[in-house]
Amino acid sequence: MPTVSSKGARMPESPIRKLVPYAEIAYKNNKTVFHLNIGQPDIKSPQIAMDAVAHHHLDILAYTRSEGSEPYRTKIAAYYNRNNIPVNAQDIIVTTGGSEALLFAMGTIADQGDEIIIPEPFYANYNGFATASGVKIVPVISKIEDNFALPPISEFEKLITPKTKAILICNPGNPTGYLYSREEIETLVKIVNKHDLFLVADEVYREFTYDGEKHTSILEIEGMSQNGIIIDSVSKRYSMCGARIGCLVSQNNKVIQTALKFAQARLSPPTFAQIASEAALNTPQSYFDEVISEYKDRRDTLIKLLEEIPGVKVGHPKGAFYCIVELPVKDSDLFAQWLLEKFDVDGQTVMVAPAAGFYSSEGVGKNQIRIAYVLQKESLIKAVNILKAALKEYRD
Amino acid sequence: MPTVSSKGARMPESPIRKLVPYAEIAYKNNKTVFHLNIGQPDIKSPQIAMDAVAHHHLDILAYTRSEGSEPYRTKIAAYYNRNNIPVNAQDIIVTTGGSEALLFAMGTIADQGDEIIIPEPFYANYNGFATASGVKIVPVISKIEDNFALPPISEFEKLITPKTKAILICNPGNPTGYLYSREEIETLVKIVNKHDLFLVADEVYREFTYDGEKHTSILEIEGMSQNGIIIDSVSKRYSMCGARIGCLVSQNNKVIQTALKFAQARLSPPTFAQIASEAALNTPQSYFDEVISEYKDRRDTLIKLLEEIPGVKVGHPKGAFYCIVELPVKDSDLFAQWLLEKFDVDGQTVMVAPAAGFYSSEGVGKNQIRIAYVLQKESLIKAVNILKAALKEYRD
Ligand SMILES: Cc1ncc(COP(=O)(O)O)c(C=O)c1O
Ligand SMILES: Cc1ncc(COP(=O)(O)O)c(C=O)c1O
Repeated sequence: MPTVSSKGARMPESPIRKLVPYAEIAYKNNKTVFHLNIGQPDIKSPQIAMDAVAHHHLDILAYTRSEGSEPYRTKIAAYYNRNNIPVNAQDIIVTTGGSEALLFAMGTIADQGDEIIIPEPFYANYNGFATASGVKIVPVISKIEDNFALPPISEFEKLITPKTKAILICNPGNPTGYLYSREEIETLVKIVNKHDLFLVADEVYREFTYDGEKHTSILEIEGMSQNGIIIDSVSKRYSMCGARIGCLVSQNNKVIQTALKFAQARLSPPTFAQIASEAALNTPQSYFDEVISEYKDRRDTLIKLLEEIPGVKVGHPKGAFYCIVELPVKDSDLFAQWLLEKFDVDGQTVMVAPAAGFYSSEGVGKNQIRIAYVLQKESLIKAVNILKAALKEYRD
Repeated sequence: MPTVSSKGARMPESPIRKLVPYAEIAYKNNKTVFHLNIGQPDIKSPQIAMDAVAHHHLDILAYTRSEGSEPYRTKIAAYYNRNNIPVNAQDIIVTTGGSEALLFAMGTIADQGDEIIIPEPFYANYNGFATASGVKIVPVISKIEDNFALPPISEFEKLITPKTKAILICNPGNPTGYLYSREEIETLVKIVNKHDLFLVADEVYREFTYDGEKHTSILEIEGMSQNGIIIDSVSKRYSMCGARIGCLVSQNNKVIQTALKFAQARLSPPTFAQIASEAALNTPQSYFDEVISEYKDRRDTLIKLLEEIPGVKVGHPKGAFYCIVELPVKDSDLFAQWLLEKFDVDGQTVMVAPAAGFYSSEGVGKNQIRIAYVLQKESLIKAVNILKAALKEYRD
């Protein structure tokens, strides 16, 4: 019998997946499960985007260009320019989600065995794309005590080897919610220029910043035209995760031409979803204002309640809709299982994402979980109260 | 300045792409270009599928499960069972086009430096997926003189090394149109079982067979439950290339579990397209009957006209909608350029795909082109007459 590849065997499981059997037990026992574990927003997609698809007039659902439809790319460029990111349509490749943009970026900049430095904790699927691409992730630890701020330059420089091809950041961060300051971005720009590295910035949560803080894109900073690669997506911006549309942006023509070859091999991004995404660019500012005030309200509620729980430490997210929470438990994986399998308050329990999957350093983050605040405020309050009761009862 | 990866530099260009600048010249000169070069059908997508999307009632365009929506997978399984392929929903992973299924299959079965044997000429993008996956394609030549039939077993066995992980076939073939007989499939099953290899069958053109010939799927044959992997797609079946929906099918649970990890990393296949694809499964048989008789008619017309051209040799396709044509020219790449740049008949010319890109052996197929018969019959007749006139005039 032929066997699967060692690469396939090494592909990481999602931090949530191993909990699925326990979740199924919870459902079988008729428990209500509040999902604090997933990044699927509960916010409505813009009506204008949903309508554009409903009113489609396609006879033949044809391939688009591999780099995405021309009018859509032109409109994305205009969106970036409104956001102080000076790019043209030809600097953009439309991808099947930010996910595919990440995969193309890794293939474009790194060979088998090359290294990419990433502040951890980081979006767990970076591990999957790195394994698929044969790339080694070299983590640099950021700490809950520092609110997950950028680690000092010296920590990065210690890790740079001849195999290092890039630094990858997520801003605002999943799972930390941390928003890098302009100074931090400038620091990164200096390091990559000094060491001739790429700086890849996953900016899929760009829109979601709170407390009047402004997001700084890497491509706003001078000196990034050859080194900078933005990963973007409509998934969270417009609550259109199912569209599967993102993009890769770079002013380095060689990067675009190379990524385009990966794009051509897979033919094109989805056509209906490009119709929706192009229309979504006309979403009125009021939509975002409402969504952001909703997320901010949830964040404030969540953080306040979490801080009241004895032994709990929590990062102060300034962006995205996640936070990392340190719990007074030894192994949050076992705790998360126990929540589903053994615990409930009046038939209700919560599902959380153990944070270890967001670290690549062995053994780090084992007492942390990630919470996504993509639930209505009342549910969020119930969920945190259940968590509080659970922590009172739980024994390692 | 950081440089792109050597993998990125090695990513092959599509056989058609280098002709794009010449096509642009043709357009600038107001020439009409008949496109014999592309695999985008001109057939209407099933109304039932287009309507399903127009009538969607989604508030939130959410991710589906990574393996595809449960009802859709269940219906695909029923479709396979109607086609004598005994699989269940859990043997199926819905992918973003057959393209992604190919990428997942390579990642699942092969490590960096592993080898996959493929009869050439083959679908050019296999090269791209192999390069992206670090896999080496080992070609076994099939010949136009034999109508591109399966090369003898001994030719395969000569090429099998400890690094060989699989044989990959395309049936019916792009670019050959060749339809493997049941005996040929059984031969392949024997080889892979004897040498403990996977047999990957790209069956995206399964529906398109002519002259009363029946397609034989690898999973119809006994003894394939551990070795067989089908690559499939809605792109050509329903003329829904822009949906970007395909699937990977295997009765080997380890293969499915491993491919699923690749699928989870990229989250999910597109949601609107799954709605369309699920509805497309209700397309009435009359749709296929019409489409197949249309393609057959075009094929017959095309082959007859081509055979009348002095010095032209043509394969006899029994399936799909392509054929390989040998021309009395030295370098079909230069000929294809010349057609666009220098030649016309009353302002009309043709674009063809040079076949060298469908071979991985250096220098083979240089006097061949691939023709796709995805044009209306009258256009096809005009196009072949232009080709005929061109060959009369052309000097290497
Ligand atoms: C940080 C980050 N990057 C990229 C993605 C990929 O999203 P998509 O492929 O839906 O665009 C996600 C999804 O959760 C994410 O959190
Ligand atoms: C043989 C073959 N396999 C796979 C594909 C991929 O198609 P898609 O990704 O649209 O399903 C194609 C497209 O032309 C093809 O010809």
